[in-house]
Amino acid sequence: MALDRDVRTPLRRQLEIAIRDAIRTGRLRPGVRLPSSRDLARGLGVSRGVVVDAYDALGAQGFLVLRDRAVPLVAPSGGMPAVAREVEEPVVPSCIFDFTATTPDVSLFGRRAWLRAFEQALRAAPDADLDYGDPRGALDARRVLADYLGRVRGVVASPAAITVVQGFSQAIDIGFRLLAASGARRVGFEDPSLDEQWETARRAGLQPVPIPVDMDGIRVDELRAIDPDAVVVTPAHQFPTGSVLAPARRRALLDWAADRGALVIEDDYDAEFRYDRTPVGTLQGLDPAHVLYVGTVSKTLAPSLRLGWTVVPPRLRDRFVEGKLYADGGSPTLDQLALAHLFTSGAYEQEVRRARAVYRKRRDTLLDALGSSLPECRVVGIAAGLHVLLRLPPGSDEAAVVAAAEGRRLRVRALGDFRLGDASFDAALVLGYARLSQPAIAPAVRELAAAVSAAS
Amino acid sequence: MALDRDVRTPLRRQLEIAIRDAIRTGRLRPGVRLPSSRDLARGLGVSRGVVVDAYDALGAQGFLVLRDRAVPLVAPSGGMPAVAREVEEPVVPSCIFDFTATTPDVSLFGRRAWLRAFEQALRAAPDADLDYGDPRGALDARRVLADYLGRVRGVVASPAAITVVQGFSQAIDIGFRLLAASGARRVGFEDPSLDEQWETARRAGLQPVPIPVDMDGIRVDELRAIDPDAVVVTPAHQFPTGSVLAPARRRALLDWAADRGALVIEDDYDAEFRYDRTPVGTLQGLDPAHVLYVGTVSKTLAPSLRLGWTVVPPRLRDRFVEGKLYADGGSPTLDQLALAHLFTSGAYEQEVRRARAVYRKRRDTLLDALGSSLPECRVVGIAAGLHVLLRLPPGSDEAAVVAAAEGRRLRVRALGDFRLGDASFDAALVLGYARLSQPAIAPAVRELAAAVSAAS
Repeated sequence: MALDRDVRTPLRRQLEIAIRDAIRTGRLRPGVRLPSSRDLARGLGVSRGVVVDAYDALGAQGFLVLRDRAVPLVAPSGGMPAVAREVEEPVVPSCIFDFTATTPDVSLFGRRAWLRAFEQALRAAPDADLDYGDPRGALDARRVLADYLGRVRGVVASPAAITVVQGFSQAIDIGFRLLAASGARRVGFEDPSLDEQWETARRAGLQPVPIPVDMDGIRVDELRAIDPDAVVVTPAHQFPTGSVLAPARRRALLDWAADRGALVIEDDYDAEFRYDRTPVGTLQGLDPAHVLYVGTVSKTLAPSLRLGWTVVPPRLRDRFVEGKLYADGGSPTLDQLALAHLFTSGAYEQEVRRARAVYRKRRDTLLDALGSSLPECRVVGIAAGLHVLLRLPPGSDEAAVVAAAEGRRLRVRALGDFRLGDASFDAALVLGYARLSQPAIAPAVRELAAAVSAAS
Repeated sequence: MALDRDVRTPLRRQLEIAIRDAIRTGRLRPGVRLPSSRDLARGLGVSRGVVVDAYDALGAQGFLVLRDRAVPLVAPSGGMPAVAREVEEPVVPSCIFDFTATTPDVSLFGRRAWLRAFEQALRAAPDADLDYGDPRGALDARRVLADYLGRVRGVVASPAAITVVQGFSQAIDIGFRLLAASGARRVGFEDPSLDEQWETARRAGLQPVPIPVDMDGIRVDELRAIDPDAVVVTPAHQFPTGSVLAPARRRALLDWAADRGALVIEDDYDAEFRYDRTPVGTLQGLDPAHVLYVGTVSKTLAPSLRLGWTVVPPRLRDRFVEGKLYADGGSPTLDQLALAHLFTSGAYEQEVRRARAVYRKRRDTLLDALGSSLPECRVVGIAAGLHVLLRLPPGSDEAAVVAAAEGRRLRVRALGDFRLGDASFDAALVLGYARLSQPAIAPAVRELAAAVSAAS
């Protein structure tokens, strides 16, 4: 707000006009607190009387609400705004039962544990940790991550190899841009896989190419024939088929990467949630030179923390860190340090254990319910993660089933939604169980069974 | 860790070898806590005795430290690692007096206020705020930001127009990529300006072109002649010359943008710290259709929070939000909500006021000290921000002065360091005062004066 001391209009009148215009155009919104007359006068370099007079005039005109011994507020009506103000429509979820497979149950997030860890981080952090820092992330956090990943996931990582990122999406954005800048043209994705990742590749100038998947994971023979510059895989629990990459395939995949000098991007996205089997180690632990490893807290804690980590092969490390630097200057430090405290106190593993027990129970209930309500459907991909794949009876039209389910206010996606290439899949539904409370599972499955029979 | 039930080697022996290898190769680092024998046995699907035996053997060999009623630790020596482990060298600041101009004094950061705001955010946030959300950021945070920016900075913004970002660096990374994808080729930068931003443009495929600056800010006549597709400006306090964009230039700049259909990227980087003048309003408030406005807490709170906001012109809004979505899926939500609490409680403005008083005092002390120790040098750009520009006597060699200053363990940068084009500037130093405590200023300036006279 600039007042002009040279024009004829008195300062108090100039100020009155300026504030009124701001209210009318919506720059000052209804309910906003204005500065005290003393503060505003000091800020503008005018006498306090000028501001008091302007406020009084605006109060009389109904633009401001004046209060004894309190700062004025912009009146609730706010005058008639001269420019139409955009209305923000909240998205109202219209479903009753939600089989979304890509999100965890955020109500399990241990808010108290996170607050305690954050408080410890904030108290203990030296001032240097508040400043611009290493784009890889806080050294203390990377140390703790290196230990955790080595111990729990068999990842070979020194703190220097780790870059903290804002979740998987940023890891691939940086990785794809780096690949494109190095001359790469095509990146392979499991087919089916998560559709948003393909677009990230396209935006970086890479062509996403489909690589078929079967119940042993990605088809490495096909990968070798198609021969992209890099491939994104979910070996611990393929999304969305739920398959686990078979041991022979793991070796074959890494052999291809070594022969070709290609990069394997390992999305270790729900490795923490395995229920029946021996935990599967990471590809990265077998071949750190050809695997870019990515993990996050999006499934174990909460997606909105936007906190993940990469372990980058030595030959790409400097360029990856540069990519992170120019992408956003590094991830927020206090969140990283809070995570480090959560790891070192043992609270992280406690949280994961607690969540795993809940999800396991839901999965078992889901399998029971599917067994009684949809005995004609096979269920696969049950060993881990937050979803299963429900194979529909031969000849089913999965789109019709999804439509019938939506009619019954179920939210569910068909396997075909995740198709990248031209291959046709047998009809199936991707059923997440993180969004269903334990008692909701049986009624949800009964509704689903009704939708399946209505569509056939 | 996968055990093979079919081979001849007993499981306990396989486990012992696997753990020992992990310690030797550095995957398990000294001091790391292993799982309890019960947990590990359950995880591997073996009897507990198998794990106890393996742990005992490794304890006897010195690889593990076994403790009564507590989980085993990897021994401090950790065996001799078979692969050389990278050593992380902490950067030891080697200067005594630091005139760095691009960072605030992070020791002023109100940790207690931030913790309180974070706690409020964490308690009040509905579960939906923990989930994947709107890539623009939490609606509550954008509402509060819209109010604050309208009231304090004269920005015209609805919550729908705001996208929360990870600081200025991410704002321009997203903005530049969007421009490049729309066919833009060249982006103008003030010359001199902050060097890292030029590289962000190059990485997005844009050519950074220099636009001269004088004591009234960017030369709009030159801008019109050079005619880039977009321009980045620091109108409130040009970095590093410290000039404030003159009113006539402001109008001319926006006229050019409107005539050309060009985008003005407004870096409002230290607008909160103005000491003598009437606060300058934003360009965005004058022409929301052609200005992409960017603000952050990097100077007012702490850079490591990586928290900023953009107000995007309507015609670019959808593409900007998409850019943010594919860049990282959105900024961390709890931090945004903490900031919203800091704003609504009035604590943010209190923090800024407190910091402003400290910086103002330091600036005054710096000006006094420069007046007595370097009376032959003119000081400009003093009205705002965290730095001033010290013009060296005609004929000075600024590189020689910087070298002499470094010899005296001062950290200082020359104006020429920020030169983008071929224009030559009069010799000058960029003197930040945020990194100097009040009592350090006079001795720092005496050292600087000695360096100046040594170099002449």
